[in-house]
Amino acid sequence: MSVEKTIREMAKAAKNSAAVIAHCSADQKNLALERIAKKINQDAAYIKAENEKDLARAKEAGLSDAMIERLALTNKILKSMADGLSDVARLEDPVGSLGHTWTRPNGLQVSRMRIPLGVIGIIYESRPNVTVDAAGLCLKAGNAVILRGGSEAFNSNQALAAIINRALEETDLPERTVQAIPVSDRSAVSSLLKQEEFIDLIIPRGGEGLIRFVVENSRIPVLKHFKGVCHVYIDADADLDMAQKICFNAKVQRPGVCNAMETMLVHQSIAEKFLPDMANQFSVAGVQLRGCPLTCRILPGTSKARDEDWPAEYLDLILAVKVVADMDEAISHMATYGSNHTEAIVTSDYERARRFVREVNSSVVLVNASTRFNDGAQLGLGAEIGISTTKLHAFGPMGLEELTTTKFVVFGSGQIRES
Amino acid sequence: MSVEKTIREMAKAAKNSAAVIAHCSADQKNLALERIAKKINQDAAYIKAENEKDLARAKEAGLSDAMIERLALTNKILKSMADGLSDVARLEDPVGSLGHTWTRPNGLQVSRMRIPLGVIGIIYESRPNVTVDAAGLCLKAGNAVILRGGSEAFNSNQALAAIINRALEETDLPERTVQAIPVSDRSAVSSLLKQEEFIDLIIPRGGEGLIRFVVENSRIPVLKHFKGVCHVYIDADADLDMAQKICFNAKVQRPGVCNAMETMLVHQSIAEKFLPDMANQFSVAGVQLRGCPLTCRILPGTSKARDEDWPAEYLDLILAVKVVADMDEAISHMATYGSNHTEAIVTSDYERARRFVREVNSSVVLVNASTRFNDGAQLGLGAEIGISTTKLHAFGPMGLEELTTTKFVVFGSGQIRES
Repeated sequence: MSVEKTIREMAKAAKNSAAVIAHCSADQKNLALERIAKKINQDAAYIKAENEKDLARAKEAGLSDAMIERLALTNKILKSMADGLSDVARLEDPVGSLGHTWTRPNGLQVSRMRIPLGVIGIIYESRPNVTVDAAGLCLKAGNAVILRGGSEAFNSNQALAAIINRALEETDLPERTVQAIPVSDRSAVSSLLKQEEFIDLIIPRGGEGLIRFVVENSRIPVLKHFKGVCHVYIDADADLDMAQKICFNAKVQRPGVCNAMETMLVHQSIAEKFLPDMANQFSVAGVQLRGCPLTCRILPGTSKARDEDWPAEYLDLILAVKVVADMDEAISHMATYGSNHTEAIVTSDYERARRFVREVNSSVVLVNASTRFNDGAQLGLGAEIGISTTKLHAFGPMGLEELTTTKFVVFGSGQIRES
Repeated sequence: MSVEKTIREMAKAAKNSAAVIAHCSADQKNLALERIAKKINQDAAYIKAENEKDLARAKEAGLSDAMIERLALTNKILKSMADGLSDVARLEDPVGSLGHTWTRPNGLQVSRMRIPLGVIGIIYESRPNVTVDAAGLCLKAGNAVILRGGSEAFNSNQALAAIINRALEETDLPERTVQAIPVSDRSAVSSLLKQEEFIDLIIPRGGEGLIRFVVENSRIPVLKHFKGVCHVYIDADADLDMAQKICFNAKVQRPGVCNAMETMLVHQSIAEKFLPDMANQFSVAGVQLRGCPLTCRILPGTSKARDEDWPAEYLDLILAVKVVADMDEAISHMATYGSNHTEAIVTSDYERARRFVREVNSSVVLVNASTRFNDGAQLGLGAEIGISTTKLHAFGPMGLEELTTTKFVVFGSGQIRES
């Protein structure tokens, strides 16, 4: 069968499975999630053997040690994948819940019922754990899912999907609720993006190149963020000790992720007091600064920031620093160079805190907290399938609820419309 | 300036206006809405003179009387447009409201704040009143809007937009919050659909051809419905008198709209009792039936339905009728031939009513009420910008809230992330 045909057949099977899984009870879905978790632990040897094939190929291909480490499935990682599924099983099932109900003057009772989206396609470059995490969340929200992981993790992903399929079968759910594309051919992605007849949503996770490719080639709605150019603004009235802790955490705790700080904006009135000590801390942690002219005057020897530094997503121990005249300049800088992902202010001023959260149009806006909190689990959504900076449908971290939609349900007693 | 450049410049201006209107108070926006309403009444003579140009061209071009009637702006229509704006002014402003707030174990307070989408493009073929209705709703929700009406209403739409622009200017809001594309060149639509840098959402309103063109050419998310193939299912336990009233209303009261019934499904056990009288009523109203073999046996002389009748959106006094073995067959028929728009059941059976609302995946699912209620105003949303059968973002009638999104707002006291 051609790749195109394979994908179409998979998409069709997904839609058929979606029609069934949409009406399964929370108990049935939770049973399947627990069964998958159990099998991952039981079949660890098989998964690791398949993972070894990927690791061997990665070494042959000369991938970096960091890449190989990301790829490796250890017992510890497998256990945390299984535990994650049990966590999802414990989350409340969003499907079928009726929201606020109102009654129209003619007696019609109107409400919205939460329903699954249908079929979701996930295209990712990340660690193989995404295969299990994404499958678990989609399943719990009553959706079918088609998974397309990175080619370097092909055997690992196929093994994990095979285990999921067996667990679904054993718990009497449609096996093809979760499908991993069985060919590593790149054209499979293009084919997948054309199945608008069967697929309701595409979520790409990976580098900007992958995401741009998906957006430009998809006929299906896409939820994504291109990049996270996150800012922290230190206001004139900031608690400088708090500001240091927040900035250090936002930059250093995990620099390679999308919610790490990439640019620090400092109010001019406190720059001389704040920057030297902060710069020392960063220097000890190995963070390189790229400063505006004023920053470089306060911190002699700092590299000068170039135009390309302001919109840069370093994903590394590098930080752009700019001294701003006031909050207006800070907000305008974020609007010009930011990515609508995550911005924070550190301030003790009530009015400026309120204005910042009102006027900054990012998916998560924080006062006196680290940008690293833009994360579904951290914000209390229970889990996360990704972060969206598209304003439609979901803006910010996406949990179970964002994998559903609502339909209107109307109960009448014979009402007809007069005009 | 080329069309492409004109559109790009307009899109850019819209984005700049959106940044301002997003933070205007409800009072400011309401003042502008009331001012537009006042000017429409005051400048009725000017609007009608411009409308005359369109009418003259339409007559020259030999448009049908029905088309010409749709185009004509009478004093009564102008007054109802102005009244509609006052109604929108009285609706609650969704922008800035904070939903449910929760506190994380580390003390972070998390909530979602409702914010405007940004810039909305509306492409329509309808009566010129859409120009005013859509502008009013977008403005109230804090968005900028670019309007592209049908070429046959070009002068009318330009006149209405000019009045809106003056009212915005007089009330100190950015004039270019509302813009009507000043060229009737068809390439303007293609250009508009490429402005993904500036435009957040496209809403097409019109025939299936227009909508397919928009969906296939847009890089911007599109909210739309292709068509409304709406069903009413008369269950074995239906109150037949109620069923007749609902079906008659759903088909006859306004057959040319998307929420009119196109196919009636009748349970076999009541078909012989229900159909003859129902058919008489339809016959008196001029409705032609297209029946399945069983229907034709019960109603001799009825035209036979062909395969193409089941997915047809007649928008006319024509109705497909099918006798079904049970509710399973009815639901499966809807899933196969329907458009996820609106479906209703007439029944007295509690369990089947519950199952129907659970299992039918349409944007509005009704029990014992006419399909004609799939309408923002009728369901209590206050107003409507259109109906979406896309499941993402909005599914069903879209009111003010669907013209907004939410961002996460997080209030902390110095929290940093440990892992």
